[in-house]
Amino acid sequence: MPVSLPIRRLAVVGTGLIGGSLALALKQAGEVGEVVGLGRRRATLEQARSHGLIDVIAESPAQIGGADVVMLATPMGQMQGVLREIAPHLGENTIITDAGSTKCDLIAAARELLGARFSRFVPGHPIAGAESNGPQAARADLFIGRNVVLCPTAETDAAAAETVTALWQATGAQVVRMDAAHHDRIFAAVSHLPHLAAFALVDDLAARPEAEEFFRYAASGFRDFTRIAGSNPEMWRDIALANREALLAELSAYMNKLGEIAAALETSDAAALERIFSRASLARRKWGNE
Amino acid sequence: MPVSLPIRRLAVVGTGLIGGSLALALKQAGEVGEVVGLGRRRATLEQARSHGLIDVIAESPAQIGGADVVMLATPMGQMQGVLREIAPHLGENTIITDAGSTKCDLIAAARELLGARFSRFVPGHPIAGAESNGPQAARADLFIGRNVVLCPTAETDAAAAETVTALWQATGAQVVRMDAAHHDRIFAAVSHLPHLAAFALVDDLAARPEAEEFFRYAASGFRDFTRIAGSNPEMWRDIALANREALLAELSAYMNKLGEIAAALETSDAAALERIFSRASLARRKWGNE
Repeated sequence: MPVSLPIRRLAVVGTGLIGGSLALALKQAGEVGEVVGLGRRRATLEQARSHGLIDVIAESPAQIGGADVVMLATPMGQMQGVLREIAPHLGENTIITDAGSTKCDLIAAARELLGARFSRFVPGHPIAGAESNGPQAARADLFIGRNVVLCPTAETDAAAAETVTALWQATGAQVVRMDAAHHDRIFAAVSHLPHLAAFALVDDLAARPEAEEFFRYAASGFRDFTRIAGSNPEMWRDIALANREALLAELSAYMNKLGEIAAALETSDAAALERIFSRASLARRKWGNE
Repeated sequence: MPVSLPIRRLAVVGTGLIGGSLALALKQAGEVGEVVGLGRRRATLEQARSHGLIDVIAESPAQIGGADVVMLATPMGQMQGVLREIAPHLGENTIITDAGSTKCDLIAAARELLGARFSRFVPGHPIAGAESNGPQAARADLFIGRNVVLCPTAETDAAAAETVTALWQATGAQVVRMDAAHHDRIFAAVSHLPHLAAFALVDDLAARPEAEEFFRYAASGFRDFTRIAGSNPEMWRDIALANREALLAELSAYMNKLGEIAAALETSDAAALERIFSRASLARRKWGNE
């Protein structure tokens, strides 16, 4: 029987900000019966249970077999391992979905690891986050008004994709469908590249003998520009590797643009500098006002 | 007779956020008698007067001759022209100082344009700014706790440098002295390069056919990273050109670091990526917590 809302049983693998907020939002919407949590760290699962995000702690992957929907909300680097562990235990009609930042890489892994059940995998990416992480940061309203991108493949079961769409809509999110490769190119440009660019700038400065002096005179512009360089390094290592090709193309385009600016500076070409800066400033201010 | 606090007459050229806030702070501190404003746009000067930042509007450069201190607070690109205009009208003991973001370039121009009076020029750079500009954004407390860098040269009159130090201290700022070339290298790294890097990223994306879609999916990380790309393009063209050499060196170091990341991605070198991201993340979080 196809799964429809309200779902009986949701399994959340990784009960941090994203997984925990989804569980909480679905509970508040009355769209889920029981939430089972699975994770690597017992303390995190206990915390998720004490915050009311999950009802039951799964002691092993076998225990999520009875779930209608399994949400993978671990860091990207752990998702393939999780798929491998849970694959043998999935029920006939269980829908698998995820909240990872890149899609092509995970789709390839899921195709290999899920075998015949690959058609029940609905790749997803909620565009939401917050300053804090972990179960204690979970909020039922995290997804209200946010975009959630789903990237069903040609093989994805249509009813499974509909159910995952309905689940996210029940949290208040807007669901958008997109080709996985297109998704990965967009997020390489607007998310992954900016993180790499910020990491690069801070690492470049932090390694110099004058590092301390640099930071002493850095002002609010630097603070904003480099905020994302404080992000979790392991998580971004995994995202960068998972979206390697699209990211290499973006890095190359960015370095070309920096080269264009360097060439204009080299020849003191004021008009060329003003042209680049004006286009950027106009685009940024237009976007900022929307 | 050397100029000391309180000063009788302050001339402010460019009565926007910085010049206006300095005038206001000195008035509140009781360290200035009369403030004369000079500028290109009559409307700005009228506004500065109606906000109480200046007392008198100078109708021509000749009218600032009687000032004890002349503060140049125009955009960088106008400072050389202003120096040329006011040079013939400066009094015997008049101290000239400025609030520009780069120092070597202006020092070279001042040496040429001020002739024998070059020793009365005290190059300065208040590290303060705000989201808004213009006389209406001026605040008496803008400089409290902020750094002001002064870059006196070997030829700078010691008493003149002391007076400018005392003026800034009267606004609540901390005054730091630094070699001009050192100043320009530091600000190339922590201010000018980040602006160029943000302009480059936004211009790169804004020029693509998918630009609209990019901006639709951009999240808070992108918003912070690119905020400074909304800055004034003419101002940053002038700063970039004024600090050309130091900035080219920083751009080159930054592009090398990006190249290092690209090479690690190319070979899927997870350890190298994690090393760079970890160093950056640690340095950024350490700085952010200070």
